[in-house]
Amino acid sequence: MNPRNRYQTPQITEALRGLGADGVVVTNLINIRYLCGFTGSNGVLLVHGDGGVTLLTDGRYRDQAAEESPDVEVAVVRDVLGAAVERIDGTWACETHALSVDDHARLDGGGATLISSGRLVEALRVVKDDIEIEALERACRISVEALEELLTTRLGGRTERQIARDLEWRMFERGAEAIAFETILASGPNAAIPHHRPTDRVVERGDLVKIDFGARMDGYHADCTRTVVVGPPADWQREIHAVVKASQAAGIAALRAGEPIASADQAARAVLDDAGWLEYLTTGVGHGVGLEIHEDPYVGLRTAGKLAAGTTLTMEPGIYLPGRGGVRIEDTVLVGETPRVLTPLTTELLEIA
Amino acid sequence: MNPRNRYQTPQITEALRGLGADGVVVTNLINIRYLCGFTGSNGVLLVHGDGGVTLLTDGRYRDQAAEESPDVEVAVVRDVLGAAVERIDGTWACETHALSVDDHARLDGGGATLISSGRLVEALRVVKDDIEIEALERACRISVEALEELLTTRLGGRTERQIARDLEWRMFERGAEAIAFETILASGPNAAIPHHRPTDRVVERGDLVKIDFGARMDGYHADCTRTVVVGPPADWQREIHAVVKASQAAGIAALRAGEPIASADQAARAVLDDAGWLEYLTTGVGHGVGLEIHEDPYVGLRTAGKLAAGTTLTMEPGIYLPGRGGVRIEDTVLVGETPRVLTPLTTELLEIA
Repeated sequence: MNPRNRYQTPQITEALRGLGADGVVVTNLINIRYLCGFTGSNGVLLVHGDGGVTLLTDGRYRDQAAEESPDVEVAVVRDVLGAAVERIDGTWACETHALSVDDHARLDGGGATLISSGRLVEALRVVKDDIEIEALERACRISVEALEELLTTRLGGRTERQIARDLEWRMFERGAEAIAFETILASGPNAAIPHHRPTDRVVERGDLVKIDFGARMDGYHADCTRTVVVGPPADWQREIHAVVKASQAAGIAALRAGEPIASADQAARAVLDDAGWLEYLTTGVGHGVGLEIHEDPYVGLRTAGKLAAGTTLTMEPGIYLPGRGGVRIEDTVLVGETPRVLTPLTTELLEIA
Repeated sequence: MNPRNRYQTPQITEALRGLGADGVVVTNLINIRYLCGFTGSNGVLLVHGDGGVTLLTDGRYRDQAAEESPDVEVAVVRDVLGAAVERIDGTWACETHALSVDDHARLDGGGATLISSGRLVEALRVVKDDIEIEALERACRISVEALEELLTTRLGGRTERQIARDLEWRMFERGAEAIAFETILASGPNAAIPHHRPTDRVVERGDLVKIDFGARMDGYHADCTRTVVVGPPADWQREIHAVVKASQAAGIAALRAGEPIASADQAARAVLDDAGWLEYLTTGVGHGVGLEIHEDPYVGLRTAGKLAAGTTLTMEPGIYLPGRGGVRIEDTVLVGETPRVLTPLTTELLEIA
């Protein structure tokens, strides 16, 4: 399907019929982008059950809206929510998981009866189409190439910040439109902090260096982590790395179409548990990735549902030892009959200068 | 006031008393950061009217919360909103402008009666304290130095993307913790698009090049725009640049403590209007800037209220001529008895190679 016309997908019509709604007011900007291609920072998309669609935005985005969403009726207005109120009547669904209480009250001030859409558009976004997969592949390829190149350089003696900037620069040089998120570059004891921000700490011989990073292309995010060691690894470093490597491989192997999502969580955790390290896993082991760096589905023991082919997820178990260091290994993976790793880079423990 | 203890500010106690609330549930992460210094991506801050405070977060942020908010009681929980419900009773204010309908419904499921806090914390954030101003000064200084250096290099023959990356790199080299927003680098006809994203268009002789950019330091954002010309300017380029320059100077001159906010809008618009160019201003002329790149107060004709000393705002009028090009000049300005420009860089039309 044309990425500018995803609002025409039959699932929306079906979902609206199921909800008994005449249409859905889409206010989440990422969902608007997904449905009609518009990437501006202010907009409301009115998707009618009969297939009609109107994009409300302001004057700054007149030309951009026409260009990005050529088949959509665009209305340039001063107040997008106010204009939405005037244009809906009957029963309309809205994104109560994303819409603020105050904005909902405004939308509720007109003639329409509002109901919740649930995560209707987020659910559509779980399975990626070919255009999306291609964008994710490009983002992942740039990321992997940039890290491979970085790892031919010296890390010891440079600060976390310097190395993070260096890696980001290599992604930009390869055409990344942006970095997917603020790079996590965590060395030595900092590697024990799951979401560490790079500091001026100088990387030293003997450090584990955890590098969690990615490029963004056409709005799609790559997400990859490798943990390397500066100089020869100590036994404990070798041990936890091997356990995380095995855990991650087991988790990835479970990302097969038709399997319960929770199985992937279980598979990754079981390896950590058997080796006696499970208590040092303090984060989730995976999440959907696409137009958002974190999106549905989240991988957890209590996650309901089965994996569908075309879903893109991360698999990222880790062991975090407060004060000492930590290891995380993460790939972006495309679910299919067999899982396909979009960030193919060795998961062996690499010794770097 | 210690930036980790802003929750102790007497204005909060007063505001809660005015609302008849026992406390406020702060869910907006930027507001949480402002009040107690915590920068994690998941948290709820419960501020009691009697000065007590509890930060609810998850296991990933145990150490970080203790370090960033040492005086705050931190509770590590699996479900921050669920834990908040259990801990509040009586009447509590919540951020209905930011809290989703669904999260509000969850919070409403316990014993407490919920009311709206309004933009209580956002209002506190308008006037910056010395620590905030110092961070903004650093972010602005890095931004200005990076642009000054960029403008000694050749722009013609490079793509918009290349020049944007070059500028960002110069900010990082000077210690920027991040870029404040995705750099707008718009050349030739693209300069007519207020929020243009850099493309592979090659900058040519005769182009106006609009550069809207900034660095971020300690969470605080710089915001600056200059428009330069490659080679000697055409008459129309010189004309619109001169008008925007005069408009921006008039707008800045109106950013004085005690003056109505709307006066600054009026002052900038009047210059464009007198010169016959007002219809080509298609954006607002200014906004608050601080922990967010766009925050209260917004500068508009209908904005109520007066300027307070210590407020930081942008002033950024522009003229956008579809298909031809455009000019915007923007500074980050600190309101005082006299306005102080934090991004001091000439506003003359510079001819660049």
